[in-house]
Amino acid sequence: WLYMNQTKQRGIECEAAIPSPRISPDVPSKGETTTTETEMSRKMEQLVRRLQQEITTAVEELEGPDGGKFFRDSWVREEGGVGASCVLQEGKVFEKAGVNISIIASKAPEGMLKHMRARKRQGIDKGPYNMFVAGISLVMHPHNPMAPTVHANYRYFELVEENGDHSKPVASWFGGGCDLTPSYLFEEDAVHFHQTIKNACDAHDPAYYPKFKKWCDDYFDVKHRGERRGVGGIFFDDLEDRPADEIFEFVKDCGGSVVQQYVPIVKKRMNMPYTEENKKWQQLRRGRYVEFNLVHDRGTKFGLATPGVRIESVLMSLPLTARWEYCHTPVEGSPEAKLLEVLRNPREWV
Amino acid sequence: WLYMNQTKQRGIECEAAIPSPRISPDVPSKGETTTTETEMSRKMEQLVRRLQQEITTAVEELEGPDGGKFFRDSWVREEGGVGASCVLQEGKVFEKAGVNISIIASKAPEGMLKHMRARKRQGIDKGPYNMFVAGISLVMHPHNPMAPTVHANYRYFELVEENGDHSKPVASWFGGGCDLTPSYLFEEDAVHFHQTIKNACDAHDPAYYPKFKKWCDDYFDVKHRGERRGVGGIFFDDLEDRPADEIFEFVKDCGGSVVQQYVPIVKKRMNMPYTEENKKWQQLRRGRYVEFNLVHDRGTKFGLATPGVRIESVLMSLPLTARWEYCHTPVEGSPEAKLLEVLRNPREWV
Repeated sequence: WLYMNQTKQRGIECEAAIPSPRISPDVPSKGETTTTETEMSRKMEQLVRRLQQEITTAVEELEGPDGGKFFRDSWVREEGGVGASCVLQEGKVFEKAGVNISIIASKAPEGMLKHMRARKRQGIDKGPYNMFVAGISLVMHPHNPMAPTVHANYRYFELVEENGDHSKPVASWFGGGCDLTPSYLFEEDAVHFHQTIKNACDAHDPAYYPKFKKWCDDYFDVKHRGERRGVGGIFFDDLEDRPADEIFEFVKDCGGSVVQQYVPIVKKRMNMPYTEENKKWQQLRRGRYVEFNLVHDRGTKFGLATPGVRIESVLMSLPLTARWEYCHTPVEGSPEAKLLEVLRNPREWV
Repeated sequence: WLYMNQTKQRGIECEAAIPSPRISPDVPSKGETTTTETEMSRKMEQLVRRLQQEITTAVEELEGPDGGKFFRDSWVREEGGVGASCVLQEGKVFEKAGVNISIIASKAPEGMLKHMRARKRQGIDKGPYNMFVAGISLVMHPHNPMAPTVHANYRYFELVEENGDHSKPVASWFGGGCDLTPSYLFEEDAVHFHQTIKNACDAHDPAYYPKFKKWCDDYFDVKHRGERRGVGGIFFDDLEDRPADEIFEFVKDCGGSVVQQYVPIVKKRMNMPYTEENKKWQQLRRGRYVEFNLVHDRGTKFGLATPGVRIESVLMSLPLTARWEYCHTPVEGSPEAKLLEVLRNPREWV
């Protein structure tokens, strides 16, 4: 679910992307966007802006002083809203890394409302509504096949009466998650990734982690292969089980865990030796990543089906390179087969 | 439309693929399969077997005596039918080439009938029916970025009463087409490809080529990119506008044109010099090929959604390697931009 990536772009073209030696908070200021502003929308906007800064800084630190830098392009959505993509390509550590934020404030499209009603969302049967969305979405694909790919996405969504009280949303909820996709399984990495996000969950509700861990395994299912995309993490949507302020604190802790979840793993793996065969296997796994994103991911599917979509934002998550070999089957007992075993039978890591 | 690739596999596993120094007609004999055999089904089965032989032989000749050889694996479909895939990977000329045939005879699944009725096929409102399908599907991805990718697919489909007269189909039709996907545009190649298939069409009906050429441009549309997949060719489905014997002759001429359409082009381009930048651009175009096949191609979508499908056959058409760069935009006036121009505005080539 990447709705915030699916902003129609007018004006700034991709080729205008400007190299930024250090990411600075130069996204168009919120004054331009928050026509339906509520207190929560303001808080969430600040959160995703801060997270983008924090995460891109951490990645550039991994790259080192001579490493890759993020290129940034920002855009203004004609219907209301702004976005900023930070993309790093062919760095020293990362093949491709992207951190995207969107802050949308506009009329809620009827098609989207229909979709929401179809999944039994209550209390939105009238309309028209205005919507506000703020979200962050990121994917990192390292070069070294021993270092896993990570994805995370956190978002806030609210609907307000078109001509009503903008401080009182008709409905609002949070969604998001994170998942880790290794090419080679290091169990301690999976444990660390899960334990870190479990800690963030447990601080808010002990029921969250078990529920959202399972939801993640169910969602990142490359069904046609009978494999999960990776070793999972958490996934949740339509979260509105308590006051928005409390859920915001939960989402803030999740977003704030990304660096801690991922950076120590990459540091351990990014300089490990590997063979050409390891690299090929990583490329085949990248192929599966492409299959999941293009065939199954709901956000990508929705984005691709939306006319006038900013396609480069929707497809930012695709790896730089991928590979498909006919009928590739790992040797029994090999590290490659060991990974497949876990993808076919998700495990409890903590 | 690759229905014949979507056979559920039981028994032979992919890893059992046996290298075949020369393709020989060792597919399980038709005696095992043609439970609803009619004269046309027999003829079409013979045609696709012969075409597979002819095309793989021509490709191996391009590869030369020290070049790549096709690996073959065949399978038996539990519900009735056989198939044989010939795949060549990392040859001298071709990165990946696959030629697949399927000969299916079984009960027609209700879901498929529903799909057919939805597209307004007449006279099949009763049932249950048995079906017979014979088809060939091929894709060739050369190494050299100056040499284009080709795809072709020809198939015959018939429905017969489950307990009725097997020699009289309730309905039968042909479908298929061919299309060329260059990374660099050589207009003479597009003209040759189109002229050759136009000649085959014109021998049967002067209305065929214009109609099927347009259908091809419309079908191979990477909608979310606003680009066609390549420079087109022909595409047709549900063809039953004259006696089956006459359409068979047309399809035979189309299938028989593949080698003549494609081999002279590859011969011209396969040894041309190229740069690393040319190779990168080819890889980006391969990425678009993956996008079309996974997101838009009806046969692939249908295959991916079919439980128990033989997934390696459905995805055989994917290139060995592909690439995605964020916001890649060719320089104005460059050969890369020239290709994009043609993909955005399909041309009449003959």
